Amino acid sequence: MPLKYIQKEADHVQGFAREMAVVTHHRLEQQQGKLVPAGELTEPVVIRPTSETIIGESLANWIRSYRDLPVRINQWCNIVRWEMRPRVFLRTTEFLWQEGHNAHAGSKEAEEEAVCILEVYRQFAEEWLAIPVIPGTKPPYDRFPGGLETYAIEAMMQDGKALQAGTTHYLGQNFAKAANICFADTNGKQQFVYTTSWGVSTRLIGAINMVHGDDNGMRVPPRVAPYQVVVIPIQHDKDQDVATLKYAKTLCTQLNALNFGEGQPIAAKFDDRLLRFVDKKWQWIKRGVPIQVELGPRDVQGEMVTLRFRTEDPQEKKVMPRKRFIQTVGKMLDDIQKKYFEEAKTRLENSIYDVTSFSELEEHFASPDSRAGFLRAPWLLSEQEDERLKSLNITIRCIPLVQKGIKGKCILTGKTTSTEAIFAKAY
Amino acid sequence: MPLKYIQKEADHVQGFAREMAVVTHHRLEQQQGKLVPAGELTEPVVIRPTSETIIGESLANWIRSYRDLPVRINQWCNIVRWEMRPRVFLRTTEFLWQEGHNAHAGSKEAEEEAVCILEVYRQFAEEWLAIPVIPGTKPPYDRFPGGLETYAIEAMMQDGKALQAGTTHYLGQNFAKAANICFADTNGKQQFVYTTSWGVSTRLIGAINMVHGDDNGMRVPPRVAPYQVVVIPIQHDKDQDVATLKYAKTLCTQLNALNFGEGQPIAAKFDDRLLRFVDKKWQWIKRGVPIQVELGPRDVQGEMVTLRFRTEDPQEKKVMPRKRFIQTVGKMLDDIQKKYFEEAKTRLENSIYDVTSFSELEEHFASPDSRAGFLRAPWLLSEQEDERLKSLNITIRCIPLVQKGIKGKCILTGKTTSTEAIFAKAY
Repeated sequence: MPLKYIQKEADHVQGFAREMAVVTHHRLEQQQGKLVPAGELTEPVVIRPTSETIIGESLANWIRSYRDLPVRINQWCNIVRWEMRPRVFLRTTEFLWQEGHNAHAGSKEAEEEAVCILEVYRQFAEEWLAIPVIPGTKPPYDRFPGGLETYAIEAMMQDGKALQAGTTHYLGQNFAKAANICFADTNGKQQFVYTTSWGVSTRLIGAINMVHGDDNGMRVPPRVAPYQVVVIPIQHDKDQDVATLKYAKTLCTQLNALNFGEGQPIAAKFDDRLLRFVDKKWQWIKRGVPIQVELGPRDVQGEMVTLRFRTEDPQEKKVMPRKRFIQTVGKMLDDIQKKYFEEAKTRLENSIYDVTSFSELEEHFASPDSRAGFLRAPWLLSEQEDERLKSLNITIRCIPLVQKGIKGKCILTGKTTSTEAIFAKAY
Repeated sequence: MPLKYIQKEADHVQGFAREMAVVTHHRLEQQQGKLVPAGELTEPVVIRPTSETIIGESLANWIRSYRDLPVRINQWCNIVRWEMRPRVFLRTTEFLWQEGHNAHAGSKEAEEEAVCILEVYRQFAEEWLAIPVIPGTKPPYDRFPGGLETYAIEAMMQDGKALQAGTTHYLGQNFAKAANICFADTNGKQQFVYTTSWGVSTRLIGAINMVHGDDNGMRVPPRVAPYQVVVIPIQHDKDQDVATLKYAKTLCTQLNALNFGEGQPIAAKFDDRLLRFVDKKWQWIKRGVPIQVELGPRDVQGEMVTLRFRTEDPQEKKVMPRKRFIQTVGKMLDDIQKKYFEEAKTRLENSIYDVTSFSELEEHFASPDSRAGFLRAPWLLSEQEDERLKSLNITIRCIPLVQKGIKGKCILTGKTTSTEAIFAKAY
């Protein structure tokens, strides 16, 4: 985008200026056997770090009257925020995300929308990805540049560190004023709209790995697994193989006609590739497929199935009648989904510690063998980041929407407060 | 991507060097009240114009043996090719596309795959977008940089100009050698794979408009329309409105339970917004919704529906019993889909002219009032673009896979040939 777009909102450009990819040339040229930039632009352009100022231009054209509101826009696109220390899935210079941009007639409606989308994100994280999260607001200094309030869902990884898993922003009229997004209200008076923006990214794929993965690889919750079941015929002997292949193929077809969860179809993969069984088995374990079904001549003869669950020890198998498997596979998948969530939820709850003083916080994070975890402590809302926290590499993750009511004074300022916040190390 | 990636294949980098966005800095700084690029990179990076050389790196890691082949990868992503004369939808500096990258053990298999994907594109264009196309190969000088053969589907816009609507490329072993993509064959011998790549972009949205649109706006073929039907209750009188709204809502629910085409569900939009009827009507006409249903008290009383078809004059309406509409709406949509295709097909066929000499070609395109159209003429395959054609702004669109067998000598060289090509002005 041209610089004039990103410059429209003063805080916004300041917030993103340090991490923007700047395009200064529009071609390459061979010079003495080396490719060098050529075709210098009169005015450099930047790769969008987010699209508020671009979409604001369109909203200004589209919106005329209160009848046009609310406008709700969502786009999937790649954005660039220059990273000095990239980390796969979590923090990459380019990433794919979904960004929503809404315009409303009133401030209350816009704020409610920001909270409503946060709830959509919470549901998606918990019910689909099986990742328990804490919804809350961000401290003022961590808000989206140019916004008035930032909401986030915070997740805990297996090492006890926090990961911001999704954010929604209430932007007030700041971006509306910057891009001149006006509407005629019911009295015909010109007003600025109130906007929100919100996004989640492929970082959530990293979160799935870091919350559910184990030493054997990924463990994918059934509701987001590309395949819920993989069916592997064991091929030994040419004569028996025909029967085994047929039995396996039929089972696969039957599974693919079934549902689990709230009417989601089961996707069963028939894996008859010419690979050693042990290689296939480990490939699917690493990929985290919830249920592996291996079928040999004995299963065929007895109308049985041999099952391996990704939630159990990879050496353990369970044999059961084919019929019963067909009857219960939906419930099994629901149970696996629930198990992943419950495991992570228990870990999260067991790793939140209430503290009421800064020294307790220091002590906690100084302990070398403790998993970091989340500290919950009284905190008085502040516009400035605390320098001591910063030097300890601890951040305030959020001010939870649901407060537990810990008694005490702000652990940073000693001032009276009725608010508590979550403190943690974070990715 | 780093320069070293794009440099791997010599023809490839040469082909794209003239249109690459070059990132030379990774932040902006305020200097004397002005934002200027800062943080100069040691080595500039370019925004991908296509991803062969990036994906090649991964293919080299993933592929070990013949058992791993074929590998078929598809991604949707945004790419950048710097445009001096951008044209909305057709030619923009950044665009969203789908790019496929396949690796095969043999050349025959890879070539067949390139033709097979071209056929997928042809089907999608003709059966979904209702855009008739001519599948063929590109002249050698118009091939994908670094590839051995480029296949394309060529469409004709209403002004008789050509639009390349999709391409597939057979890349031989060029990119495999550049990225060292090897596999052990059945004898354990190391071989390079054969790759293909293929893509279509949001340019197809432009094609829909330029093939089907009329003076009243878009006309969207039912199979790709977000809504096939819009139901608009006409609100006059408070007492009657309740019955009309209910009648309209019920109809909408009934429509949404129906299918058309090959089992595609009908999406019916219930439009009870507080806007003047005439505004709604024109809004949906401009957006190209295939069928508008307007319902007033008279329709309610007589159990009738009033229909307006986007394929007909916008002033014309048709009234029919509600029951019959429900019974026939699926067929109506199929007929509309067919009508769009047949209209475009007739236009295309009536605008292909056979010529057998260069002077005929010159004469044809010199005529100021003729729609340009496609010329079909004998042509001898050449590695170089013809300068006379270039100066006339005419290009060879493709060498059709299905040849009509026009007799004559190459219109450019006068040499004997048994091949014919399509010549046209193009977007």
